[in-house]
Amino acid sequence: MQAIVVSPPKKGIEYVDFQEEDGTGIPVRIRETGICGTDREIVNGQMASASLPRGSSFMVLGHEAIGVVQEDGESIRKGDLVMPVNRRGCGHCLACLNGRPDFCETGGFVEAGIKGMHGFMRETYWDEERYLVRVPRGIEDIAVMAQPLSDLEKSMEEVMQVQNRLPWKCPDGSLGCRKALVVGTGPIGILTSLLLRSYGLGVFISNVREPSREEQKIFDDADITYYNSSSGYSALRDKHGEFDLVFEASGADASMLPQLLGIIKNNGVLGLFGFPRSGYASFSHTDLQNLVYRSIAVVGLINGQKPHFQSAMNRLAAWKVMFPVATSLLITRVLDHTERDSVREALTSKTPGEIKVKIRWS
Amino acid sequence: MQAIVVSPPKKGIEYVDFQEEDGTGIPVRIRETGICGTDREIVNGQMASASLPRGSSFMVLGHEAIGVVQEDGESIRKGDLVMPVNRRGCGHCLACLNGRPDFCETGGFVEAGIKGMHGFMRETYWDEERYLVRVPRGIEDIAVMAQPLSDLEKSMEEVMQVQNRLPWKCPDGSLGCRKALVVGTGPIGILTSLLLRSYGLGVFISNVREPSREEQKIFDDADITYYNSSSGYSALRDKHGEFDLVFEASGADASMLPQLLGIIKNNGVLGLFGFPRSGYASFSHTDLQNLVYRSIAVVGLINGQKPHFQSAMNRLAAWKVMFPVATSLLITRVLDHTERDSVREALTSKTPGEIKVKIRWS
Amino acid sequence: MQAIVVSPPKKGIEYVDFQEEDGTGIPVRIRETGICGTDREIVNGQMASASLPRGSSFMVLGHEAIGVVQEDGESIRKGDLVMPVNRRGCGHCLACLNGRPDFCETGGFVEAGIKGMHGFMRETYWDEERYLVRVPRGIEDIAVMAQPLSDLEKSMEEVMQVQNRLPWKCPDGSLGCRKALVVGTGPIGILTSLLLRSYGLGVFISNVREPSREEQKIFDDADITYYNSSSGYSALRDKHGEFDLVFEASGADASMLPQLLGIIKNNGVLGLFGFPRSGYASFSHTDLQNLVYRSIAVVGLINGQKPHFQSAMNRLAAWKVMFPVATSLLITRVLDHTERDSVREALTSKTPGEIKVKIRWS
Amino acid sequence: MQAIVVSPPKKGIEYVDFQEEDGTGIPVRIRETGICGTDREIVNGQMASASLPRGSSFMVLGHEAIGVVQEDGESIRKGDLVMPVNRRGCGHCLACLNGRPDFCETGGFVEAGIKGMHGFMRETYWDEERYLVRVPRGIEDIAVMAQPLSDLEKSMEEVMQVQNRLPWKCPDGSLGCRKALVVGTGPIGILTSLLLRSYGLGVFISNVREPSREEQKIFDDADITYYNSSSGYSALRDKHGEFDLVFEASGADASMLPQLLGIIKNNGVLGLFGFPRSGYASFSHTDLQNLVYRSIAVVGLINGQKPHFQSAMNRLAAWKVMFPVATSLLITRVLDHTERDSVREALTSKTPGEIKVKIRWS
Repeated sequence: MQAIVVSPPKKGIEYVDFQEEDGTGIPVRIRETGICGTDREIVNGQMASASLPRGSSFMVLGHEAIGVVQEDGESIRKGDLVMPVNRRGCGHCLACLNGRPDFCETGGFVEAGIKGMHGFMRETYWDEERYLVRVPRGIEDIAVMAQPLSDLEKSMEEVMQVQNRLPWKCPDGSLGCRKALVVGTGPIGILTSLLLRSYGLGVFISNVREPSREEQKIFDDADITYYNSSSGYSALRDKHGEFDLVFEASGADASMLPQLLGIIKNNGVLGLFGFPRSGYASFSHTDLQNLVYRSIAVVGLINGQKPHFQSAMNRLAAWKVMFPVATSLLITRVLDHTERDSVREALTSKTPGEIKVKIRWS
Repeated sequence: MQAIVVSPPKKGIEYVDFQEEDGTGIPVRIRETGICGTDREIVNGQMASASLPRGSSFMVLGHEAIGVVQEDGESIRKGDLVMPVNRRGCGHCLACLNGRPDFCETGGFVEAGIKGMHGFMRETYWDEERYLVRVPRGIEDIAVMAQPLSDLEKSMEEVMQVQNRLPWKCPDGSLGCRKALVVGTGPIGILTSLLLRSYGLGVFISNVREPSREEQKIFDDADITYYNSSSGYSALRDKHGEFDLVFEASGADASMLPQLLGIIKNNGVLGLFGFPRSGYASFSHTDLQNLVYRSIAVVGLINGQKPHFQSAMNRLAAWKVMFPVATSLLITRVLDHTERDSVREALTSKTPGEIKVKIRWS
Repeated sequence: MQAIVVSPPKKGIEYVDFQEEDGTGIPVRIRETGICGTDREIVNGQMASASLPRGSSFMVLGHEAIGVVQEDGESIRKGDLVMPVNRRGCGHCLACLNGRPDFCETGGFVEAGIKGMHGFMRETYWDEERYLVRVPRGIEDIAVMAQPLSDLEKSMEEVMQVQNRLPWKCPDGSLGCRKALVVGTGPIGILTSLLLRSYGLGVFISNVREPSREEQKIFDDADITYYNSSSGYSALRDKHGEFDLVFEASGADASMLPQLLGIIKNNGVLGLFGFPRSGYASFSHTDLQNLVYRSIAVVGLINGQKPHFQSAMNRLAAWKVMFPVATSLLITRVLDHTERDSVREALTSKTPGEIKVKIRWS
Repeated sequence: MQAIVVSPPKKGIEYVDFQEEDGTGIPVRIRETGICGTDREIVNGQMASASLPRGSSFMVLGHEAIGVVQEDGESIRKGDLVMPVNRRGCGHCLACLNGRPDFCETGGFVEAGIKGMHGFMRETYWDEERYLVRVPRGIEDIAVMAQPLSDLEKSMEEVMQVQNRLPWKCPDGSLGCRKALVVGTGPIGILTSLLLRSYGLGVFISNVREPSREEQKIFDDADITYYNSSSGYSALRDKHGEFDLVFEASGADASMLPQLLGIIKNNGVLGLFGFPRSGYASFSHTDLQNLVYRSIAVVGLINGQKPHFQSAMNRLAAWKVMFPVATSLLITRVLDHTERDSVREALTSKTPGEIKVKIRWS
């Protein structure tokens, strides 16, 4: 059975014939896998934390996948379309016992295709039913987005929990008076901006360039305001005021962060999702006094779990109706797994205009 | 301008030419209004708490409506499809100041078409922008359901809050191990059962008869198990065990409640949404010891506010994709407001097989 | 080693020489045990749910105890004064894995001296460190009250959680505008009324008679208003209005409950802690409509766990300073375990004026 | 009537005869005022944000005070000992309408003796009853500590709310497995370390020197471990592991913060209470990746409101019993307001060994 594998620290991918020996649970035929920035970092040897499954000299790549169940389970039936949860718990800490390895205390979790566990870029694999989330047929075309979206459903749930520290709802009970800025227009930035619209906030999104025509269509469809931040954020603040939430989704140089802190409103929150890849964030004591005096919170946000995958499925379904233009533009390219050269290239570098590329397996 | 009015305690409706003199805010042209059980109670003189707008000898009926905005507002634009929030606050208590007149402490709130405020069964009316919720175009056909659904969004938010008193999430972080029974198959029962499926619970629904073919189609579409409770609930409990949540949506005779309490699991909750219309609920001291010993909660659930209308819009959008059969069966009849005899009849009695009847105004 | 044991369904107690064979953990020399109504029910054969430890033909009585640690543990040291947590989890359900057997889902928990586990009315016993809560030396005299108080700390935490469903804090951020009625003036009623004062609510307490001189001193010390409810509650409501919280702590005939529901304010909560011993609570459909229309909650409240024992210790310490008169009147009698006839009598019936009787062991 | 006033930006204090013209509410005779670092900053002209009451050319100093009520109010009686809440709301934003000007959104709040409102260093003043919190007689000697403690009660409530984003309670339901480091041994550091002990955490406290004999007695009384951080924190981490909570209470140079972030455990939180007075905090991209990857939160913590003053009163009462040695050492000096030279000096600089200095007014 064909699988795409990596052998870090060696760069690049290989197609191998791979059959897991100790498959338990239910067989799942992979239908599609998505490609994400993390995959490329692993392939390009830039992700130091990637680690092989115990006892293996290689790792099957891929953590965004949908597949078709091949045998009846207890509550899942043969033929059901499913998505696997990609991070699995350490089995010991209270977070993992409560189904929340996103908050694993020991660091002993594994992640499919990333850390200590084979991923999903292969034709068939076995999984336990409890890790499989049902995919509604009506969102089949965009369902690979549910994995990254699950991370953001979790992130926003966490941000809301953090903001429960104060009277955060508006006088009409909604979040309509709150304003968010999403930094970065990659798949994470786009999904986050749509998600914040669904939460009812006013949403701005920024990148250091003008938006592409497709991006602009997406933002128009969901009443999201685009801002070109190549000259910094002061023009934005001068025109639209400070933000209740700034969500960093670009992974840009760390030196940008003090600027972002500087446009946050009293009691606001700076959510950090992107991994900064370089640089230093240098905050003056005045910046920090401001953070204290204005009750600002900064929160590191990572990984979604089963309930967040379920929310993501509901969300994508709603978006197909609410943001029909935006959802139709999310998948920018579909490759068959047999197109090996194209797959290899797609796993190495991002093409201009790309939002999500997916690989078809069956 | 035509309006349907009532003059309780006089029974019946009248069509009158009515123009509010002191309209402020934004003009809204009504497109459709839904008919609900409360309307019929008012029309039939059974609702003692219905009360006229101050200084008026009659009241325009109707609290479920969608309409088209006729002038630009601040964040709402001419041509937008909107739904008005039907209950408005007393202006004094902290709940109302926080946009939550569903928990009005003074009882001084008003409700369109029910208590102290003209309703929406008329061609045009004026409203303040803050009471208008945008309706996505993609759910236009079923959007009148968003008003009753808003009540249920609020109810389920409240139930979840109540259950936060304990570790209520399942070992996988979801609500997949929790099981709910919805009592009653009217519009409220059906919407609640769909909503609980969206929350991820296993859902049963009951009535004292076999389901109609259309009802069965709805339940099949959303994996909801129907139970005929004409012989009580013991057969259900024997087969499927006790329930984490029982939601009373039938408004049946009060004598049914001890039975419902008897099938609730440790730490479970009995949500009362329907108004029992007759009878007594007699609990023995053993029933009550059981309630204490097993940490059971009983909660009265009523009215949704702006955030719940917004959730309802998102929910209906998701359901169009996730439950396409169910959503296509919700509207069972559409009348034009000019069909006065049919409207009059529809406002007096429910027809067999009816789920939601709506009146078209423009 | 002397122990007081029961052998239900046989009535009465026996003093036996008892040494647990499989003692593990840390040895604890019992200093004092409290006597509570549950002990008397077991001794008098009225508690059907009392059950013997597995494999034993009798059970050591007692669930309220303080003792002195005899050997160093990990964080507890020889000589420390401690109180054991009396209910221990089933080991399986998520509530128990989270340290919350008060919400045990399986019912498989055990309770010292009550259900499936030997109690603390003995000279020495062994326990695991995790079940021992440190007692500050400054509250040694009243520390046996911490066990019943732990149940109430848990109950009030739960009530607060339930009320989080609405804007429940007052306009000044406190609970000073909220008003509670505690029904019953036994130890539970008295502790609850003090606890509600510490939470900042206005507090009323009722019984069907005039208060004793000692009771009145306690209530005066903590600004608690006493009400003689022998003629019902309407005079109370007429004078002081409705209540945000009614806490049933009397275990009186169930027929009283509809009256209590009738004096609860919009959005209020009826907490049931006492086990009604007889009768029926018959609610009319109008009572129930009222419950729905006014968003009232009824909650069964039982058992506190380790965090609640810790809160109880802090609370008793604060009360020694804040309510010095009240705390000095809580212990009404101290018996030595060698005064067998007096102990036997105290374990059979309550004496007039009694609040808490304790037995000294060392 | 004598009052101590400042006239920033002019340095120093003056004693003046001052009578507020428009006193409304209830007259309060000041008994004692505490001196805090903020007072000294204002006196020494270092606090740029200090601002005069509208229309006044000076400001009465002082925000920590207890006094005796001179006339009956609604729920407060003549002779009651009270403490005024020092920050008052803007009157407009939802936080302030909910009694939470600690989260004022407009910045339009005033603060007695600091920003736009006369303080309490005077013989008598008038106040509205809603801003007065009753002081139990039993804590009269240390009650001025309740104002700074209220800030910390609020801070810890906020930290707990932030940590509700994850399963933060230990397997026994307590916080006993959590470990906190408090940085700084001023009054704020000491009160915070005692407070965290009351919450049940393991507590460490650090300063860049050895503790004084008195400090060591305080820490011993409450099982707090002192750490001399003059050589950094790595020795602490090597011996005791990482911390779930680091609370910055020193206001030291900002360059210390990256070190503190470096000793925080997965899912931990860095609470910033002290205002850094100098320097830059420079975080590398690796530091920030770590924050994201490990779900760390950083939160600015400031000001307590009425409910936190009430908690602080309960807390001080409990501490008198639980930490009798520690509480007896908190007040290091009492000056009479007529000792003008000593008061002037005490308001200019901190003396070695000082914890809290208070001025007696009546």
